[in-house]
Amino acid sequence: VSVILAKCSKCGQNTPSYEGVFLTVCPKCQGALLLQYDLKQISDLTPRNVFEERDDTFWKFIEFLPIQSENIVSLGEPYTPLLQFPTSYGRFFRNVYIKDDGRLPTGTFKARGMAVVVSKLIELGVNKDVAIPSAGNAASALAAYASSIGLNVFVFMPKDVPESNLKECIYLGAKVRLVDGMINNAAEALRKYKDEYGWVDVSTNKQPYRFEGYKAGAFELAEQFNWDLPDNIFFPTGGGEGVIGLWKGFKELSELGWIEKIPRLIIVQSSGCAPLVEAYEKNQNEVEKPWRNPETIAAGLRVPHPYASYLVLRVINETKGKAMAVKDSDIIQSMKAFFRMGIYACPEAASTLAALTKLKEEGHYDSEEKTLLYITGTAMKYFHLMKMNNDLAYHA
Amino acid sequence: VSVILAKCSKCGQNTPSYEGVFLTVCPKCQGALLLQYDLKQISDLTPRNVFEERDDTFWKFIEFLPIQSENIVSLGEPYTPLLQFPTSYGRFFRNVYIKDDGRLPTGTFKARGMAVVVSKLIELGVNKDVAIPSAGNAASALAAYASSIGLNVFVFMPKDVPESNLKECIYLGAKVRLVDGMINNAAEALRKYKDEYGWVDVSTNKQPYRFEGYKAGAFELAEQFNWDLPDNIFFPTGGGEGVIGLWKGFKELSELGWIEKIPRLIIVQSSGCAPLVEAYEKNQNEVEKPWRNPETIAAGLRVPHPYASYLVLRVINETKGKAMAVKDSDIIQSMKAFFRMGIYACPEAASTLAALTKLKEEGHYDSEEKTLLYITGTAMKYFHLMKMNNDLAYHA
Repeated sequence: VSVILAKCSKCGQNTPSYEGVFLTVCPKCQGALLLQYDLKQISDLTPRNVFEERDDTFWKFIEFLPIQSENIVSLGEPYTPLLQFPTSYGRFFRNVYIKDDGRLPTGTFKARGMAVVVSKLIELGVNKDVAIPSAGNAASALAAYASSIGLNVFVFMPKDVPESNLKECIYLGAKVRLVDGMINNAAEALRKYKDEYGWVDVSTNKQPYRFEGYKAGAFELAEQFNWDLPDNIFFPTGGGEGVIGLWKGFKELSELGWIEKIPRLIIVQSSGCAPLVEAYEKNQNEVEKPWRNPETIAAGLRVPHPYASYLVLRVINETKGKAMAVKDSDIIQSMKAFFRMGIYACPEAASTLAALTKLKEEGHYDSEEKTLLYITGTAMKYFHLMKMNNDLAYHA
Repeated sequence: VSVILAKCSKCGQNTPSYEGVFLTVCPKCQGALLLQYDLKQISDLTPRNVFEERDDTFWKFIEFLPIQSENIVSLGEPYTPLLQFPTSYGRFFRNVYIKDDGRLPTGTFKARGMAVVVSKLIELGVNKDVAIPSAGNAASALAAYASSIGLNVFVFMPKDVPESNLKECIYLGAKVRLVDGMINNAAEALRKYKDEYGWVDVSTNKQPYRFEGYKAGAFELAEQFNWDLPDNIFFPTGGGEGVIGLWKGFKELSELGWIEKIPRLIIVQSSGCAPLVEAYEKNQNEVEKPWRNPETIAAGLRVPHPYASYLVLRVINETKGKAMAVKDSDIIQSMKAFFRMGIYACPEAASTLAALTKLKEEGHYDSEEKTLLYITGTAMKYFHLMKMNNDLAYHA
């Protein structure tokens, strides 16, 4: 096993005992834990070119994940496509790339985190039930991986989630509890039950394994870009685990000497729920209080008080990134623009194009720089958000 | 260019002039054309092991496709996952594999055919508008690829298609005409307009290019199975181009000496529209008249009078396959079973598991044989078909 310890991202304390235990948060300060590896030892044993010869799947860099290959729980995770804007759009946006994680199992990037966490449960021999608060996509990804190996999944969802998300979780075998309020209320409800029922809590940012899945995405991207990463990455951000995981991956790649440049991480939120943007603009170290009346069509961005906000803000500042808010109406326009390129981007993901467009309009977009828009999920689950324009269909 | 001629699958006549022309059907008998290659020359120039070293994408065996690599129109087509049933299901179904084409652009296997046909249009410099009759997924695949390079797409759809399919096509940039009746009526409506407006008709089985996309799927499968293909492949079949393309691929692989065994091709239809099953059971050479009152939740299987039925029946007989019909209620049950494995199978695709289950119940399933269920598309577009079971969600 290549993990040597878990370090708290808040107080810096190490959690020494690792083997055999499903880690959650820092026992001292409840901060998010980040797994630490002996990177040099891994790359001494397996040089980069040996990794490169393996198949292009999520599991390619398994030595940098906290699991042994015999414990992998897989639903089929080939490298997701890296695309360039087609020519017509490319005229306006040169050097812009798209990473399409909508092709992963269950249609979103959440599969990365859940593939790792469920495999870890297998490795530890934990055959307890698992539980999560989720607005939809984290829950469906968990349900898919966990159900496939026979674990029971309990999901706590805000009761106003779209029926399609609810159905999806139920058909994947999850037991769903609907909760008044938002994701934070769902998390609270889960806390009340989990000890009583002995559930394993795999909440966002409250265990160190899901970050590692997004970290694998960083390794995948680096190889796809031939180890010369873009200058900027736009990433839609609710709870922030995706961007934290990417950043962790880039730091490890840099420490390994496999990449020279770490991209600026530009997080995008909806102006209807932008606590991280507000904190960033006020130069605060964390989100101090929940966003009031959060309202956005991008359900994954409706996180009024992200648990690891301090860490997301650190990621932005350390990489000289940004935090941007875009309007829901611009998100819808960007979904449409993506469709016209043949790309299915969910609302959260479409926010990245809205942000890039905003930056360009404000004159802050350098078209000589390489830029990546990270598509975190497919539009296929969201046709209900698109209004029907009857002018475009008529009887022959 | 490696294509040497196009041969009619019905009367056997060769269409000699190939270069520069977008081929449709046999000028003599209107049969479906199949492209012929100098296979020996290709494999002499590029041996199998050289192909194997390339990236695992749809375009890996480009020399066996009728296009040059510089004309590829891509939306990102990595090899789609080949999975085994998880253990709990594997107990009942040993040696059963799943090929998940729901991960392709637009979420269905139709992307294979459309990637080839749209690339071919680019290669020929055809910048005319393209048109297609479709119940949904062929249209969206065409619209995605064609829109991405600025071609106009005209779609003729039965007017009772689910609104989500209609919206999808419109947002992908297609101009949609709604037609009274079914896919055959949509095809008729298209015929009335296409010459007047100069549209390129890319209808199912009425041009030889889309078959080549499914053929690439055959090469992909063969390599994934290390050139030792399964004994049986279950494939959902409406118009039949998928299974025709697969068969063409297997024949070429066999001629190349790259595989020894061609799988039995077992086509699956809904009992609400099973013209191919009826013709197969009556030992007919083709579907003689349209299926009356076709009715099934699997829109892609609602093809009452398939254009190339004679060829599908030949494929079944030549490979010692079968044609099976399954009930819609069993299709829904199989969608649910797939969900519990973490697999998103559209109704058409779920029919394969229903057929396998039926065969097993009838005692005709040999569990020692290797069997593949071909998932032609994702369930994500079909949540509306799944009834909500309120017992499973309750307030916390």
